[in-house]
Amino acid sequence: MNSQSRGRVLIINPNSNEAVTAAMGVAISCLSCTTGVEMETRSLAGAPFGIESEADAARVAPMLAELVGEEEAGYDAFVIGCFLDPGLAACRHMTKKPVFGIGECSIYAALSLADQFGVLALSRASVGRHKPIFRRLGVWDRLAGELPLSISVAEAVSEESVYPRLLDAALCLRDSHGAGAVVLGCAGMARHRQRLQDDTGISIIDPVQAGAMRALGAVLTNQAASA
Amino acid sequence: MNSQSRGRVLIINPNSNEAVTAAMGVAISCLSCTTGVEMETRSLAGAPFGIESEADAARVAPMLAELVGEEEAGYDAFVIGCFLDPGLAACRHMTKKPVFGIGECSIYAALSLADQFGVLALSRASVGRHKPIFRRLGVWDRLAGELPLSISVAEAVSEESVYPRLLDAALCLRDSHGAGAVVLGCAGMARHRQRLQDDTGISIIDPVQAGAMRALGAVLTNQAASA
Amino acid sequence: MNSQSRGRVLIINPNSNEAVTAAMGVAISCLSCTTGVEMETRSLAGAPFGIESEADAARVAPMLAELVGEEEAGYDAFVIGCFLDPGLAACRHMTKKPVFGIGECSIYAALSLADQFGVLALSRASVGRHKPIFRRLGVWDRLAGELPLSISVAEAVSEESVYPRLLDAALCLRDSHGAGAVVLGCAGMARHRQRLQDDTGISIIDPVQAGAMRALGAVLTNQAASA
Amino acid sequence: MNSQSRGRVLIINPNSNEAVTAAMGVAISCLSCTTGVEMETRSLAGAPFGIESEADAARVAPMLAELVGEEEAGYDAFVIGCFLDPGLAACRHMTKKPVFGIGECSIYAALSLADQFGVLALSRASVGRHKPIFRRLGVWDRLAGELPLSISVAEAVSEESVYPRLLDAALCLRDSHGAGAVVLGCAGMARHRQRLQDDTGISIIDPVQAGAMRALGAVLTNQAASA
Amino acid sequence: MNSQSRGRVLIINPNSNEAVTAAMGVAISCLSCTTGVEMETRSLAGAPFGIESEADAARVAPMLAELVGEEEAGYDAFVIGCFLDPGLAACRHMTKKPVFGIGECSIYAALSLADQFGVLALSRASVGRHKPIFRRLGVWDRLAGELPLSISVAEAVSEESVYPRLLDAALCLRDSHGAGAVVLGCAGMARHRQRLQDDTGISIIDPVQAGAMRALGAVLTNQAASA
Amino acid sequence: MNSQSRGRVLIINPNSNEAVTAAMGVAISCLSCTTGVEMETRSLAGAPFGIESEADAARVAPMLAELVGEEEAGYDAFVIGCFLDPGLAACRHMTKKPVFGIGECSIYAALSLADQFGVLALSRASVGRHKPIFRRLGVWDRLAGELPLSISVAEAVSEESVYPRLLDAALCLRDSHGAGAVVLGCAGMARHRQRLQDDTGISIIDPVQAGAMRALGAVLTNQAASA
Repeated sequence: MNSQSRGRVLIINPNSNEAVTAAMGVAISCLSCTTGVEMETRSLAGAPFGIESEADAARVAPMLAELVGEEEAGYDAFVIGCFLDPGLAACRHMTKKPVFGIGECSIYAALSLADQFGVLALSRASVGRHKPIFRRLGVWDRLAGELPLSISVAEAVSEESVYPRLLDAALCLRDSHGAGAVVLGCAGMARHRQRLQDDTGISIIDPVQAGAMRALGAVLTNQAASA
Repeated sequence: MNSQSRGRVLIINPNSNEAVTAAMGVAISCLSCTTGVEMETRSLAGAPFGIESEADAARVAPMLAELVGEEEAGYDAFVIGCFLDPGLAACRHMTKKPVFGIGECSIYAALSLADQFGVLALSRASVGRHKPIFRRLGVWDRLAGELPLSISVAEAVSEESVYPRLLDAALCLRDSHGAGAVVLGCAGMARHRQRLQDDTGISIIDPVQAGAMRALGAVLTNQAASA
Repeated sequence: MNSQSRGRVLIINPNSNEAVTAAMGVAISCLSCTTGVEMETRSLAGAPFGIESEADAARVAPMLAELVGEEEAGYDAFVIGCFLDPGLAACRHMTKKPVFGIGECSIYAALSLADQFGVLALSRASVGRHKPIFRRLGVWDRLAGELPLSISVAEAVSEESVYPRLLDAALCLRDSHGAGAVVLGCAGMARHRQRLQDDTGISIIDPVQAGAMRALGAVLTNQAASA
Repeated sequence: MNSQSRGRVLIINPNSNEAVTAAMGVAISCLSCTTGVEMETRSLAGAPFGIESEADAARVAPMLAELVGEEEAGYDAFVIGCFLDPGLAACRHMTKKPVFGIGECSIYAALSLADQFGVLALSRASVGRHKPIFRRLGVWDRLAGELPLSISVAEAVSEESVYPRLLDAALCLRDSHGAGAVVLGCAGMARHRQRLQDDTGISIIDPVQAGAMRALGAVLTNQAASA
Repeated sequence: MNSQSRGRVLIINPNSNEAVTAAMGVAISCLSCTTGVEMETRSLAGAPFGIESEADAARVAPMLAELVGEEEAGYDAFVIGCFLDPGLAACRHMTKKPVFGIGECSIYAALSLADQFGVLALSRASVGRHKPIFRRLGVWDRLAGELPLSISVAEAVSEESVYPRLLDAALCLRDSHGAGAVVLGCAGMARHRQRLQDDTGISIIDPVQAGAMRALGAVLTNQAASA
Repeated sequence: MNSQSRGRVLIINPNSNEAVTAAMGVAISCLSCTTGVEMETRSLAGAPFGIESEADAARVAPMLAELVGEEEAGYDAFVIGCFLDPGLAACRHMTKKPVFGIGECSIYAALSLADQFGVLALSRASVGRHKPIFRRLGVWDRLAGELPLSISVAEAVSEESVYPRLLDAALCLRDSHGAGAVVLGCAGMARHRQRLQDDTGISIIDPVQAGAMRALGAVLTNQAASA
């Protein structure tokens, strides 16, 4: 560990799309330099290019658990960087260090800002995959709505041209569904967050930032308390 | 397929404990010979000896999905033979054939017999692992209670001597918790089912039988309708 | 009991519409001949021609309980053949033999196949009557939607001409509501099941078959265990 | 209708135990003489002596519906005087006049006084019968607890000697379960209400009074509005 | 207290709009003269002209608690006359006398008449404010729907011209959302209640009347029991 | 604002107990110096010495809303420093800046670490006050349990001698109730957090730190995004 470092967090992108990993790094870079906590982003070696089904999620879950087990000693907290939170329970079984899922963290971040939250999903299929998650978390009755954007991960990560779709959907969640905060339901959409927040006037949550902040909180409060 | 066969069901024991697989075969043998539907039980090659944590469950999930994908053409329905239903969503992604989880099926079997159900778990840790499952399924408010037996899988499968513990716990679920039916919360306890049902006077559900019956129902009604 | 018989199930149509009773017999005939379990369908003497209100359901409930009490010795399991499950708790009070309601059984059958289920109801009034049932069962949050067909029981039982309405509604439940399985919300619609399943690509559940399968399961597993 | 009368309410005791009917009359007598609304209590002819099972409840449901249908013209509101609310939906189908169930009304009366309510049940079997009701009503999460008194209807109606049991159970609901109001879970316990309220310092709700008050409210506000 | 009086109820309008207070007095006048219980309506001195935000609700809550504390000796029950039930828990902390909120009471009144209820709100913003209330009360799953009228309090209280909007929305709640009873979601709409009930054929609940009736019930049954 | 400052957060202790405010400052001091975000703690002028009832909570709510309105321009985020989250909705009405409640934030922090959470409350009365909050938030089914410590705020803030009570209760929540994380249910208990976490081996959440971290996250991610 760097002698200046106040702690280390490993944020794992459970797919092998380096563009997503890079976008995650940009999204959380200021958290790291600001706080003195090192935040490392890493793609999962051998993972599929995208997590686009429950089968993909199942495939990476044991790989994530194995990685967390191997790296346990070197980090103070781990973040699973996919909205589906693949392998979260399995990873927690491998370490006493805190492990956060960006899906859960982003939902709780939204719920700490507003009574009803909305979600922007990449596709209709994603919407279906999220339903049992909301029910398991017990937040179903606080979901104002979830709308599909019908865009690919690649478009979400790198295309400004999809922004109007995000804006339309977010305005619909705000005005027709009553959402007081909106979660970006995929790891690669951080570039649109601030602009969308400014244009809608309600809080927009990027899940990678939400997960990283929870890890940061765990690291800093543990430091604070043990100082 | 056997020319006499009315269909084929593959019941996968997602661990490599052959004693459990054998016990599963005994539990469902009469369903097979009675109905003309072939029911095959199989251990999962390369799986851990037991599924005793979320990490174990995560490890076998992609293996199950792969197996179901490979065997899709040869069977009319699949059953995942572990109460935690590992990889169920992933398996369903791999095939249009119905895939049943014995955990889910046993809970629904109990709920079709009584307003409140109970569960007998092997250990206290199992009880903790089951909670989010009940919540995801939406059956939390119908759970009268779940009690740990503090026995191993090996004891559950092969030891008559643990029966008094099952009886005590089942009577407690019936009398103190108000359970009208009780689920055996592990794949290997079928040998105790009938005796426990006779001694308690309430329905006792073995999950392997419950899952196998659902698969049987899917096969027979599809046949019936298409005849 | 027939010496060849492996058990007997009484499926009671709680109305006096013989066309419905006959349709029920057709729906489950193959289950019976396949398995060696005798399945008898019977109309409820003195019942109204249809169960089209809570008043009708209340009227037949004590008649069903009386019948189950009288016939207890002759059958191994009973099935109440109306989606509203009239008199289910009362019937269970009259016998230690298992009593299944086709409404409950069909919902649980759907839930063992998919995260979210849909229901096709005969009429808008039926939709209203079903809501407290879903809530009592605790499955409200897993209901993707329920759509009225605006057809009569007679049309459901005997008219091919109503099929396009079923297909339209089932596709809507699948595509707009996200249902992964659809329940036919009335006892007489089995004739449409397989065609609807083939045309939609998702599981379609006939409640009479679902109830009969649960009874079959109870009979066969009790036999299996006691053999 | 009496020319002085401001309206008429029929409160039906759905059993044939005249002692219960008489106790109901005493419980609501002052509501009647105070308000000018005539409140008539009546036993249900041909009903069992007590409603002590779902089979009893099913038996009286159609009799209640028939009676309400016959008497519709003569009354402005109806009250079903049994905590299980037998036949409530069926009765509502027979008339446009409001029909109240004392079980529902007593629960809502308690919930308008406190966040968490408790219930005193005659027996352990009653407790089991009430669970699906609480779940259907959606009040499960606000139930602090329900305790059985292990007394008969006859004792509840006419014996002062059972009072200590009520007090012990009510204090337990208040102190250990956190109940802020307690419902007497049977039609005949009104005689204990005020004393129990004085001794516990929390609101005690008699269901017959609660149902009668809702009927009174419907009659008076309809009068008020139409004056 | 008047020597003829059977008790006194204080109904507090927590805003300073005297037109609303006057409308409340008209709404409950017949309850008072009919029953011999004195019902006094009073505006809250120093309150804002309307309760149109959570900030307004927060502002009046301690004023209400103080008033209830000061007036405790002079009244047998208190009613908070705003659908948001501001300060209800705080008022209950100040007195052992029962304190009712008209929002809660109107919802329970509707639920004792029908399985699903609807609400007519003044504005879209009101709809958003009501959601956490429904969830806290546990009645979320029984809400058929809530529709905004887009009218002001002044229009609700004094304008016949807004009636068509109420009727349209109530019919929509009845026919499209399945509401069996509809609550007027603001204190000043009583003048429309009977007409709306006649035109829709379903029960319409005025919250001020519902709250006053609960207070009346508490006063009369306490009298009855203690006589 | 300090030219070095990366943002400012105002954490308001809504009572006038300066010892609590000082303890809050200690709890979050390291977050501030670490991150460059200024965190100011302030007692609420004119507030009661403790928030020990809903009446106290109601009293401070409008004072908090007024303060937030007045200070809006000077801060980037606000935190209400009482587990009951008094005036949270009202404060949010006064500003577009994010306002966090430490109660909500601590619960969500716990839920992002474990499936079931526990709470340590100062007193039995606190436990009762928290129930409707958990229900409103929708986290009721994830609450493993809440236990009262029967200690005063003063003891919580300044006495090491109460630690054994915290430890006993936390171990009970972990071992008997199945809590995977435990929230300290009062603003002044941070001094015990790390020791309790070390002794129990599960995450212990201090609500002031949890609320401060959410505010920090909002400030840093807004900076990050707008940089």
